[in-house]
Amino acid sequence: MLAPGVKALVFDVFGTVVDWRTCVTDAAKNISGDRATGVDWGAFADAWRTEGYLVPIGEIVGGTRPYSDVETLLDDMLGELLLRYRVDLAPTEVESLKSVWRRLDPWPDSREGLERLRHHYVLAPLSNGSFALLTEMGKRAGLPWDCILSTELFSAYKPDPRTYQGAARLLGLAPDEVMLVAAHVGDLRSAAAAGLRTAYVPRPLEWGPQGRQPAPPDPSFDVVAQDFESLADQLCPEDARR
Amino acid sequence: MLAPGVKALVFDVFGTVVDWRTCVTDAAKNISGDRATGVDWGAFADAWRTEGYLVPIGEIVGGTRPYSDVETLLDDMLGELLLRYRVDLAPTEVESLKSVWRRLDPWPDSREGLERLRHHYVLAPLSNGSFALLTEMGKRAGLPWDCILSTELFSAYKPDPRTYQGAARLLGLAPDEVMLVAAHVGDLRSAAAAGLRTAYVPRPLEWGPQGRQPAPPDPSFDVVAQDFESLADQLCPEDARR
Repeated sequence: MLAPGVKALVFDVFGTVVDWRTCVTDAAKNISGDRATGVDWGAFADAWRTEGYLVPIGEIVGGTRPYSDVETLLDDMLGELLLRYRVDLAPTEVESLKSVWRRLDPWPDSREGLERLRHHYVLAPLSNGSFALLTEMGKRAGLPWDCILSTELFSAYKPDPRTYQGAARLLGLAPDEVMLVAAHVGDLRSAAAAGLRTAYVPRPLEWGPQGRQPAPPDPSFDVVAQDFESLADQLCPEDARR
Repeated sequence: MLAPGVKALVFDVFGTVVDWRTCVTDAAKNISGDRATGVDWGAFADAWRTEGYLVPIGEIVGGTRPYSDVETLLDDMLGELLLRYRVDLAPTEVESLKSVWRRLDPWPDSREGLERLRHHYVLAPLSNGSFALLTEMGKRAGLPWDCILSTELFSAYKPDPRTYQGAARLLGLAPDEVMLVAAHVGDLRSAAAAGLRTAYVPRPLEWGPQGRQPAPPDPSFDVVAQDFESLADQLCPEDARR
């Protein structure tokens, strides 16, 4: 075990556990059908994720924007994007597209890795997604979470230190008994600053085959793994596949 | 389906899902061994549950006692009870006994009923037990919860209406899309007053074979079932056993 004393693994979700870009791209393409054939749906998905989620959350954490729930942020941006890309959807189609964030599929290794890890650790998401979104996603995708930790429970967003410390407190654990697993070095550095252990699982396909590439790992990260199977090999060596 | 529109079932836990009295009685007896042979451990368990949990929580909800976390309440009462019953335990034995509330076993029908219900509803505990306690208990006992709802998340205790309404809000549902399943009519009446649907599953053995008996059901309860198998038969009739 590379992380003695760790009792719970908490997971960043979007990009780390699930492949949001492929799912959002496919859903938008399928829902709009042949009414919007010229749209670069990958770019549409990237813009939704960046402008409707990453940017406003960064502003909220930085104190320049008031707190707002994440599904409102995403819904507002979808309205803007449909205008920008000149996509005309019926109200029921808009509702269906909005809720795609609850129906994201895991990366191919996610479920099997989690199934091995669950025998040794308490497993939970720790995501800026809402509690209801994470609950529905986990149930649909068959993710073996022991509980759902959404930063909504702390009325804050990662990387606010209250989210990492709040997760440990709710689990009844010291911060260094909790390890964050994430595909994003900023999230991991903030977790480490709050006292958590860290596991980096870069996901080179998060932003698509030609998309931005993961940062190199910090030497300070406790574990670096190429996927959740490798993570389980490292964190549960006694049952590593032979 | 007797409860159209219900999307989530939330469960009272102590007495409804798990048999706290047998587990606490057995643990206390086993830990103390032949050092305390004359003790009525069933009465000890009843006193711990009543004086260390039900009474102080009632005072907190009633506003005559400041909020305190539930494991502190239970721990404090254990100290008193060990003196009252003249049981002399080593510190590690006291720690082991304290944590028995995290290791309670389900009633014989609980797990199988939940496994059937999970295919049709979001399932969660809604208990005054702490978030960590409910997480650990569910994992150990193999209860297929989709998320953990502890009243700790609302800094309140049932039957405070904020707990029932808070559960619905976190699940992203209207109160009448959530049904409370409980063995206690007071809990159900308070849930109904907060807008939730209700399922009564009386547990005649909760306080032991000679213990107090469940109250008769209110005519207003949506569902009455003798155990979780019967609950699944009523709430998922299409897969009722033939």
